[in-house]
Amino acid sequence: MTNANQTNRRVLLRARPVGQPDPDLFEVDTVDATPPADGDVALETLYVSVDPAMRVWISDEPSYVVPVGIGEVMRAGGVGRVLESRHPKFREGDLVQGRLGWQSHPTVAGDELTKLDASLGSALDWMGPLGGTALTAYFGLHRIGQITSNDTVLVSAAAGGVGQIAVQIAKLEGCRVVGIAGGSEKCAYLTDELGLDAAIDYRSERDLGAAMSRALPDGIDVYFDNVGGEMLNAALARLRPKGRVALCGRISQTAAESLYGITNLGELIGKRARIEGFIVTDFASEFSNARAWLSGEVKAGRLKQRIHVLDGLGDAPRGLAMLFRSENTGKLVVKVAD
Amino acid sequence: MTNANQTNRRVLLRARPVGQPDPDLFEVDTVDATPPADGDVALETLYVSVDPAMRVWISDEPSYVVPVGIGEVMRAGGVGRVLESRHPKFREGDLVQGRLGWQSHPTVAGDELTKLDASLGSALDWMGPLGGTALTAYFGLHRIGQITSNDTVLVSAAAGGVGQIAVQIAKLEGCRVVGIAGGSEKCAYLTDELGLDAAIDYRSERDLGAAMSRALPDGIDVYFDNVGGEMLNAALARLRPKGRVALCGRISQTAAESLYGITNLGELIGKRARIEGFIVTDFASEFSNARAWLSGEVKAGRLKQRIHVLDGLGDAPRGLAMLFRSENTGKLVVKVAD
Repeated sequence: MTNANQTNRRVLLRARPVGQPDPDLFEVDTVDATPPADGDVALETLYVSVDPAMRVWISDEPSYVVPVGIGEVMRAGGVGRVLESRHPKFREGDLVQGRLGWQSHPTVAGDELTKLDASLGSALDWMGPLGGTALTAYFGLHRIGQITSNDTVLVSAAAGGVGQIAVQIAKLEGCRVVGIAGGSEKCAYLTDELGLDAAIDYRSERDLGAAMSRALPDGIDVYFDNVGGEMLNAALARLRPKGRVALCGRISQTAAESLYGITNLGELIGKRARIEGFIVTDFASEFSNARAWLSGEVKAGRLKQRIHVLDGLGDAPRGLAMLFRSENTGKLVVKVAD
Repeated sequence: MTNANQTNRRVLLRARPVGQPDPDLFEVDTVDATPPADGDVALETLYVSVDPAMRVWISDEPSYVVPVGIGEVMRAGGVGRVLESRHPKFREGDLVQGRLGWQSHPTVAGDELTKLDASLGSALDWMGPLGGTALTAYFGLHRIGQITSNDTVLVSAAAGGVGQIAVQIAKLEGCRVVGIAGGSEKCAYLTDELGLDAAIDYRSERDLGAAMSRALPDGIDVYFDNVGGEMLNAALARLRPKGRVALCGRISQTAAESLYGITNLGELIGKRARIEGFIVTDFASEFSNARAWLSGEVKAGRLKQRIHVLDGLGDAPRGLAMLFRSENTGKLVVKVAD
């Protein structure tokens, strides 16, 4: 089988965001699929991801990645099925993971793809508890947060893609775990379904710091931060000696005008505490070990992930906007084909 | 010889600071010296230290140390001579270092004193390049900053007690080193006397960030921060990937009302960078090795320290105020007796 005569439906970036990433920053077109050159693999996309980090990728502010160009296909991780392979490691029908982008029929260099190990989980598992957001939670907690079983761990955006996995890993390690999420439904999910020791609903709390003090009366050993801003400031004030902050994201801080001024960094001195940022790809050489552990926990029923599936590639831009309004319930993915 | 009939001149804390620590927070009295009990050592103070950290010690905000009580002798490191020892490790005439406090004739538990090794340096050396501020520079750079010879290092308050030593250690390690200080005289000292690659005079620069960009066009690997606030924010914006900030002090941030809001923490994520606070006493078990290295560099003429000596115990409160107005030229000590 080849991808000849296939059309490729694509979501292109048409403008850069000011503040939150609105759906009208993107447009959809349809072109002929690109025939694979030597070393390439032609794919049919099954799922693509929608992640908070995309806000950085579509901005042209200096960052750790080259921004997506205007008129280019939106960058995104995904899972696809091989239609035609001109790379020795892949053959028709293989399931693969990689940077497929928001498009239905990508043609990708085989060297940049990972063949899915079906024994570890399904294609959707590879978008969820075996995917990039789960690995982010895993390495953020272990390598940056250096969690131990005696730690009290606070996770922000705890019902989100990374957060859900982070809180469960911390529980599995024996930590006391508190999550912050928006709305009573998400908080009930954290305590009732995921077994957290407490959840803080930031939408219903007038004083976030006081709510943290109630839920964490002895302070915080590790704060896994996906939010930044005021929430980070309140957590810094409640760090315990030798506390660690794993700075994973800052979904609250999307525009220069709205940047919150952190006043509590002085806490770090007397507490000998640490704030450290990280990017999961730095740990790529350890991904297979981490996936084996995650897969084992999923199969044993100890690790679950609520995945919020949008249907159809055209919904991806709307999904990105939902993330920044906290309207998703779990890791957000777009189903492109069966 | 005993300390019987000795009078002890003391500087007592009489009120807690609001903003900068003014001299009128203290009062001087004279009492009989305390006869040493079993295990104690009666001392004559030669030098006491004046340090920015004292602002924290006299405040009753929650911190890493119990605050100095109202009516108590001001806490301070110092060097003294043993007048009478009831501790087996010390004898009359020994020089010792410890928390002597701002007083002329302290009586201290021998277990809390360190006998000076005269082969390493003079009594004044033990207040300077072998003292607590020098050890702070040493461990902050090595253990928190993890400097290597390829690093570009920025030090704030670079002409101060800790800063002077920090810039020289970084130069000795082969780093490119830039210091920030207030005034052209201090900046000339840093470049002409201490051999720094550049110095930034924060008093004459309208745009501190732009001045950093000129002096550090390729960014900062390690920022040794004694100042906090706006200077820290500007440095965060110029950190290089995997950059480290050793948070040693925050002399700019003395009152809750004046706390500067740090907006650049997001830089840490994509740069995989780190901010970490520390307290030098955490490294006490390694002090003797560090002192041996520092002493060797001093004797070889490669490490110097400008010490600003005030004469007479009564000047200590004025010295503390000077620190917060950046009026000292080097490590500030008070000479109490010859």
